[in-house]
Amino acid sequence: MNNNIDRPLDLLNNSRGKEVLVHLKGDKQFVGTLLAFDIHINLVLDNIKEIENGEIKRNLGLTFLRGDTIIYISPATTSLKKE
Amino acid sequence: MNNNIDRPLDLLNNSRGKEVLVHLKGDKQFVGTLLAFDIHINLVLDNIKEIENGEIKRNLGLTFLRGDTIIYISPATTSLKKE
Amino acid sequence: MNNNIDRPLDLLNNSRGKEVLVHLKGDKQFVGTLLAFDIHINLVLDNIKEIENGEIKRNLGLTFLRGDTIIYISPATTSLKKE
Amino acid sequence: MNNNIDRPLDLLNNSRGKEVLVHLKGDKQFVGTLLAFDIHINLVLDNIKEIENGEIKRNLGLTFLRGDTIIYISPATTSLKKE
Amino acid sequence: MNNNIDRPLDLLNNSRGKEVLVHLKGDKQFVGTLLAFDIHINLVLDNIKEIENGEIKRNLGLTFLRGDTIIYISPATTSLKKE
Amino acid sequence: MNNNIDRPLDLLNNSRGKEVLVHLKGDKQFVGTLLAFDIHINLVLDNIKEIENGEIKRNLGLTFLRGDTIIYISPATTSLKKE
Amino acid sequence: MNNNIDRPLDLLNNSRGKEVLVHLKGDKQFVGTLLAFDIHINLVLDNIKEIENGEIKRNLGLTFLRGDTIIYISPATTSLKKE
Repeated sequence: MNNNIDRPLDLLNNSRGKEVLVHLKGDKQFVGTLLAFDIHINLVLDNIKEIENGEIKRNLGLTFLRGDTIIYISPATTSLKKE
Repeated sequence: MNNNIDRPLDLLNNSRGKEVLVHLKGDKQFVGTLLAFDIHINLVLDNIKEIENGEIKRNLGLTFLRGDTIIYISPATTSLKKE
Repeated sequence: MNNNIDRPLDLLNNSRGKEVLVHLKGDKQFVGTLLAFDIHINLVLDNIKEIENGEIKRNLGLTFLRGDTIIYISPATTSLKKE
Repeated sequence: MNNNIDRPLDLLNNSRGKEVLVHLKGDKQFVGTLLAFDIHINLVLDNIKEIENGEIKRNLGLTFLRGDTIIYISPATTSLKKE
Repeated sequence: MNNNIDRPLDLLNNSRGKEVLVHLKGDKQFVGTLLAFDIHINLVLDNIKEIENGEIKRNLGLTFLRGDTIIYISPATTSLKKE
Repeated sequence: MNNNIDRPLDLLNNSRGKEVLVHLKGDKQFVGTLLAFDIHINLVLDNIKEIENGEIKRNLGLTFLRGDTIIYISPATTSLKKE
Repeated sequence: MNNNIDRPLDLLNNSRGKEVLVHLKGDKQFVGTLLAFDIHINLVLDNIKEIENGEIKRNLGLTFLRGDTIIYISPATTSLKKE
């Protein structure tokens, strides 16, 4: 495999400066530009927007998200392997 | 990137003395001036107000917030990168 | 800043012997005199009263509160910085 | 202050052999004689009774309570400082 | 005090080979013979029965119970101190 | 006692290659052959079936179960001590 | 036993580059190709799809899943031992 993702945090590292979708427990969703992360999966996102039913609910600018409430993080990129 | 945020806690450090919005599990919201934080994301805020449906519900003055219940912390600043 | 609060636990330390409001998960509220705390935010309060809908529900005297269930701790003092 | 409670566990230590009220998550309540505790706030109580709506629901004798579910522990004593 | 229970785990140790009642979160109840335990309060019970409304719901034989879900463990013995 | 179970994990070790019933939080139930476990009680089961109301709901083959959600694990064996 | 699974993480290691079903708390389900995992059971999956009632709800491409919310991981393979 030639995707530069050996460990899960490699994906977060590759996504710095790019837009990501973050899905929290309780079905909260955010999109924003990933600036920083740590091993607890705490994140800082810029230009972050809370999304509800596919629409922007709130504009929060620069925001710290605690890793504890995160379910998944999905970079707004195409997949590595096409089906 | 030239934003001085390499790790998530850098955003909290840059926000000391500034107003932040803190969103807790169970949809509690607080605004106040960030005085201190630690690696557990325990916070001390001054002039803190609990917000419900966009209105001030309670004035709590100086308050210790346990990090365990925090979902996100958003400084009342503009974003670093304009869209 | 000249408030003697560099770390969150400094606020608890400054509040020993003073009255504090403690808000727990599940919206339980207590007021009492803070006697002791530790790094887990376990507390001992004296003359503690459980508050429900703004009224005293129960008088518990001297009580140990486990930090795990605490959301915030607010000393019954004025804010450091006036608005 | 002259109450011999510098750390929260001091209150539990002073309460060995005495009756305490233990309130658990989910609003379970027990009264019994505190025999032992550890740093996880695991307790052993003797002559323990489960209390529901102010009445004895169950007599459990000697019982181990896991600290994880405990909200507060209140010795059946008067307060240190009278109001 | 002359009860050989200095630490909470002493009660579990004294109860090896004896019948205990185990109450879990979500109000599940089991009775069985305690064979083994560890510091996480993981247990192995033999001849274990799940109890619902005072009746045997299920016979599970030899079973491993994870400590994480346990609220209390009560040996089917009389109290140490008579009231 | 002559049952080779001194610590709770001994039961899991004795059950390798044997059928076990695993009960999760939220009342999910699985049966399958225990292949491996670790100290977090993470399990690998083969020929695993999800059981609902006593019937097979799903056939999952070889599966990794996270220990965190497990309530109990019961080998499909008779008890050590007959009643 | 000749299945190369001595510890639970061996199954995840054997499943790299293969399709897996991941079931989360709250009954969320995902299928995708396992690229990476760590000891916290954080995963990266490629070509990941959220499944609801047996149908594809959402296509998320390359995604980081936090281990904390995972119940089970099932490679889309046949069982090791036929029944």
